[in-house]
Amino acid sequence: MKPVIILVTPQLGENIGATARAMLNFGLDGLRIVNPRDGWPNQKALDMAKGAAIVIEKAMLYTTLADALADIQWAIAATARNRDMHKPIYHPATCTDTLITHSRAGHRTALVFGAERSGLTNEDITLMDAILHIPVSQEYPSLNLAQAVAVMCFCWFSTLSSSSSAANPTSLPSTSTPAPKKDILAFFEHLEKELEKSGFFSSAHIRPTMAHNIRNLFQRLAMTEQEVRTLRGIVRSLAKGRG
Amino acid sequence: MKPVIILVTPQLGENIGATARAMLNFGLDGLRIVNPRDGWPNQKALDMAKGAAIVIEKAMLYTTLADALADIQWAIAATARNRDMHKPIYHPATCTDTLITHSRAGHRTALVFGAERSGLTNEDITLMDAILHIPVSQEYPSLNLAQAVAVMCFCWFSTLSSSSSAANPTSLPSTSTPAPKKDILAFFEHLEKELEKSGFFSSAHIRPTMAHNIRNLFQRLAMTEQEVRTLRGIVRSLAKGRG
Repeated sequence: MKPVIILVTPQLGENIGATARAMLNFGLDGLRIVNPRDGWPNQKALDMAKGAAIVIEKAMLYTTLADALADIQWAIAATARNRDMHKPIYHPATCTDTLITHSRAGHRTALVFGAERSGLTNEDITLMDAILHIPVSQEYPSLNLAQAVAVMCFCWFSTLSSSSSAANPTSLPSTSTPAPKKDILAFFEHLEKELEKSGFFSSAHIRPTMAHNIRNLFQRLAMTEQEVRTLRGIVRSLAKGRG
Repeated sequence: MKPVIILVTPQLGENIGATARAMLNFGLDGLRIVNPRDGWPNQKALDMAKGAAIVIEKAMLYTTLADALADIQWAIAATARNRDMHKPIYHPATCTDTLITHSRAGHRTALVFGAERSGLTNEDITLMDAILHIPVSQEYPSLNLAQAVAVMCFCWFSTLSSSSSAANPTSLPSTSTPAPKKDILAFFEHLEKELEKSGFFSSAHIRPTMAHNIRNLFQRLAMTEQEVRTLRGIVRSLAKGRG
């Protein structure tokens, strides 16, 4: 399973097209787009993609990031800003190695990029397994969206090319299938609904921050499907006992 | 000495601007341009560069690649096509390591990129110490100029960032200062003039190919300044004896 690229609310068609081109240069063709600002299809994206127009034509459109991530089992978010979250921060090489390890285990992975101006929200990032920091010069750290995608697609392809004949250096136990994001999101929603009912959130004001912290906490578990089922069972059981 | 980026006959101002932006993102600011198709200054280049306009403003303009390379001591050419030349072919990681090793020795280095459509000529490549192959998917190998620059600037910056605190893994003997390209070019011209006079080139038709082969042969020596002086002395001496 090759990684997919997810663009969240991209603004410029040119950047979507340049993303598609860089993807296909480096052997990737699964593009998912969440709420593009200028609608869809986008002629500027097609023009810019040139010979990679096929990537644009078969790109999948979503209205929420949660939908775009539904079947994904490991997701990493590119972000320039520091987030006050307890979440592993990966550099490009580590990110690439982890993507390849998951790919070889047959897991569905995603590299997620936010909008040009604003990036990803903290809410978006709660669904991620890790944060990607591309090292940039502090003198001018503003990396163009398609350039960031190009750098990561290059890292993936060149690492894969150079390691394809070598023995697989790391592997995951075959019994631990990471849960797809839709299961994890359903667990979060289940948990939060029960917490809401239970009066856990002392005020509406504090609720988003508390919910984010809880999501980030559980996200770090990198849960398997079985573990998600177990946790949901626990929540269900606790809620039932209270009710 | 940080590497400089040399664009030879670039066609689109947008690509020059995107090049400048990627350079400054990754800590590079020395841009040299040989015969840009649409003249200079170029408003599209400035617009596209955004916060990296300074790189465009202080870019240096040349009419020949030889001029742009005059003070450079180690140069590598990005090329997608296979060249029938006996010249070392580097992948991005090796290219980056070599650039950093030369930089630390105080040598002037250059990464050279050809025009969007046609790339570099074989004549251009005779002046290079090595050829850079960026691995790309054979399904769609046509890498955008600025994306290629971005990938290499990223490699340079991320390798430098991760190795700056470590001991320098390789080094060059301080006595072997690589000759600047202007000395090597002057040697080539001297040698070819003497060969011409001596009737070495059996026909005008065959001359360019023979000259290229000879240049590539000597270029592989990676000559020091002293070695160039020595070789010129040999040519001068041989020619004088014949005259």
